[in-house]
Amino acid sequence: MPNLNLPKSVKIIEVGPRDGLQNESQIIPIKAKVAFIEGLADAGLKQIEMTSFVHPKAVPQLADALQLIEQVKPKAGVTYSALVPNMKGLERAIESGVKRIAVFTAASNSFTQKNIRMSINESLIAFKEVTKEALNAGLSVRGYVSTCFVCPYEGDIQPKAVLEVSKKLLDMGVDEISLGDTIGAAVPTDIYKTVEPIINAIPLNQIALHFHDTFGTALANVYAGLQLGITNYDSSSGGLGGCPYAPGASGNLATEDLVYLLSRMDIETKIDLAKLAQISENIEKQLGYELPSKQLKRLKVSNKLSV
Amino acid sequence: MPNLNLPKSVKIIEVGPRDGLQNESQIIPIKAKVAFIEGLADAGLKQIEMTSFVHPKAVPQLADALQLIEQVKPKAGVTYSALVPNMKGLERAIESGVKRIAVFTAASNSFTQKNIRMSINESLIAFKEVTKEALNAGLSVRGYVSTCFVCPYEGDIQPKAVLEVSKKLLDMGVDEISLGDTIGAAVPTDIYKTVEPIINAIPLNQIALHFHDTFGTALANVYAGLQLGITNYDSSSGGLGGCPYAPGASGNLATEDLVYLLSRMDIETKIDLAKLAQISENIEKQLGYELPSKQLKRLKVSNKLSV
Repeated sequence: MPNLNLPKSVKIIEVGPRDGLQNESQIIPIKAKVAFIEGLADAGLKQIEMTSFVHPKAVPQLADALQLIEQVKPKAGVTYSALVPNMKGLERAIESGVKRIAVFTAASNSFTQKNIRMSINESLIAFKEVTKEALNAGLSVRGYVSTCFVCPYEGDIQPKAVLEVSKKLLDMGVDEISLGDTIGAAVPTDIYKTVEPIINAIPLNQIALHFHDTFGTALANVYAGLQLGITNYDSSSGGLGGCPYAPGASGNLATEDLVYLLSRMDIETKIDLAKLAQISENIEKQLGYELPSKQLKRLKVSNKLSV
Repeated sequence: MPNLNLPKSVKIIEVGPRDGLQNESQIIPIKAKVAFIEGLADAGLKQIEMTSFVHPKAVPQLADALQLIEQVKPKAGVTYSALVPNMKGLERAIESGVKRIAVFTAASNSFTQKNIRMSINESLIAFKEVTKEALNAGLSVRGYVSTCFVCPYEGDIQPKAVLEVSKKLLDMGVDEISLGDTIGAAVPTDIYKTVEPIINAIPLNQIALHFHDTFGTALANVYAGLQLGITNYDSSSGGLGGCPYAPGASGNLATEDLVYLLSRMDIETKIDLAKLAQISENIEKQLGYELPSKQLKRLKVSNKLSV
């Protein structure tokens, strides 16, 4: 009989407004983004990554980061964060008043080279400075590790590479690492192999898992994570973003689909699924194409949403 | 640490030509169906449900059952089967020369009433006769149990109801039961709760699991089944059929997605994924819309298929 000693509750880190929207070429008006983020908080999400302080020309969709954060009315008990790629981004983040930032690297040198034109170590040196300054300014810092299982350029990633970069992030003052299956190729055995050594070295509550549903394995991987005792999961409302092939193809695990799995397993999330789906549907209307979340489809078909 | 004592190999029962095509209103020419079935065997599938002997007027798509079976060139080592709803269907099945049939009932009375206008017990009485005659004629018999976890009319199904009907099917001479999550609502904890009592009462190799990916939980459920030691899984090439909402929405678990999960976990299927995807793509062209299999999308994008 498998281990059914699953966690009693799970924390979901909503990345839709940042990780979801950053790949969308059609610019969403700031008013709709504000409503999106405030709606997510109303639906019960306690951790929301709102935007990114990348160079405005690099990601025009998120060029409004500063104004966006100023305009969102914060909800008590909700932690809002923003991605920060460098010191210039950190300056803007501090100016915005956001209390938490996220930095990012990967477990594959080929990936960091292609993605941010640095080796893993170069990125760690750069983010060490950013993290130090952020902590000095009273902010907290989350760290993303991309390509923890499979790299599109290198193939399978050694678990020790993931452990090493995770430790270095924590050593510099990051308080939570998010281990990403960037191309969505991992299966449950990959999760055990890579995450178990990390659990043995790092407190459970500092580990989050970030899955993509590209090949339909995201919920199987969440389930593997739950069996390991992991209680922090990233997801994106509606399954927004990360779409590698075509509109409607799955990228980020949809928050609705994650909430369904968890709630049917009696794992508490305190998220109102119907409310969340309504919020996703609003952003879907802005985008003009169908988001991949399967629960979103179900709730629309069931006429529980205003369609 | 979760149980990683997973099976070394898995048997896949391909249901695309029957369960997949039966919901398609656009009639596929018999030549294309023959090529589909022969292609599935070439790709390595060892169990293929080819068609159904339902009344031709009820499912026009499968009205060609008799001719189809006559025209398919059987491959050595492959078991071909056909669904049989009643004695009239059995007569046609025997005439066709098919060596294996499948009968079907459910674990929910409301479902059998709506689906076949019988109670579970009435359906068992009817299929007892069919099974007896089939065995007398030298055929073997598989039994489907629908709505094993959640019924669209009754909600959650008691595990003992599934056990009871499973036992009755085996008692009448069925050699394998296929436990279906008909609306795709189950999650791994459902699988344990319902399937574990069955494992304690019925030999493992007589149990198959039949998942739908409606809400994205199919591979998580397969993984739960693997942890229980189950080695028989139904799936449909390309994810064909069972589409409850809209073209492209997921119904049946796609054989490609199942093969990917298993092969990445080093579980042997002896199926050639690229070959299988090519076969699915051919049927996709006949249907004129995109099938939901995520691996099929990947293989097309990777230009490994002729697109």
